[in-house]
Amino acid sequence: MPQVIPEKYKDLFDKPAFAHLATIMPDGRPQVTPVWVAFDGRYVHVNTAVGRQKDRNLSRDGRVALSILDPANPYRYLEVRGKVAERTEKGADESIDALSQRYIGKAYPFRQPGEKRVLFKIEPEHVTAMG
Amino acid sequence: MPQVIPEKYKDLFDKPAFAHLATIMPDGRPQVTPVWVAFDGRYVHVNTAVGRQKDRNLSRDGRVALSILDPANPYRYLEVRGKVAERTEKGADESIDALSQRYIGKAYPFRQPGEKRVLFKIEPEHVTAMG
Repeated sequence: MPQVIPEKYKDLFDKPAFAHLATIMPDGRPQVTPVWVAFDGRYVHVNTAVGRQKDRNLSRDGRVALSILDPANPYRYLEVRGKVAERTEKGADESIDALSQRYIGKAYPFRQPGEKRVLFKIEPEHVTAMG
Repeated sequence: MPQVIPEKYKDLFDKPAFAHLATIMPDGRPQVTPVWVAFDGRYVHVNTAVGRQKDRNLSRDGRVALSILDPANPYRYLEVRGKVAERTEKGADESIDALSQRYIGKAYPFRQPGEKRVLFKIEPEHVTAMG
């Protein structure tokens, strides 16, 4: 049974709060990068470019962890462990533009020539909230 | 040969910037938590309480990753992958108080009864800097 994000921490997904996404490298080491993040009420959404390390790691091993601090109070935070429920390129362009609107107030301006976006939907399994 | 932290990003270790520390759980999943962090010129220092998940994970598998955003500009950040070079309880009390001074302006106020602190020195192996 997936553990839901506590109601009182859902505001973290409305603010431009970064998530630090930990994935597993091919040799079992961890990787962690700051990412934009959204929550649709069930899944945490993360968006990357096809073929990047995050895409390769998440496609091979869907087990992830996320850490999100409240920008207004770093002693209020959420940790989520879960797994990739879906990897899709459908709607991924729209989703990166929506994320970009929330984080920097405009459609995603950093696309590289030929870049294809991919959306990962992450099912939360274990949640720790503080503050 | 350990890769050093670029000079122009060392200020991140002077500011009260949180690091998001990714470790490996016993079953190979990632874990990530926000931590206070210091840099001694060679090793990244992380401090936790003996017996906590971070201590157990780091003691079993010393491979870690850290992600640090500049509080003044989240599009300026540092990612460090490395491994635990030393785990020590010696000086760990002094180090948590020094970290606490930097982050919250006073000696560490959150000790639990009987809590023992442990200091991990992490050798950077791969560094990515942005912004």
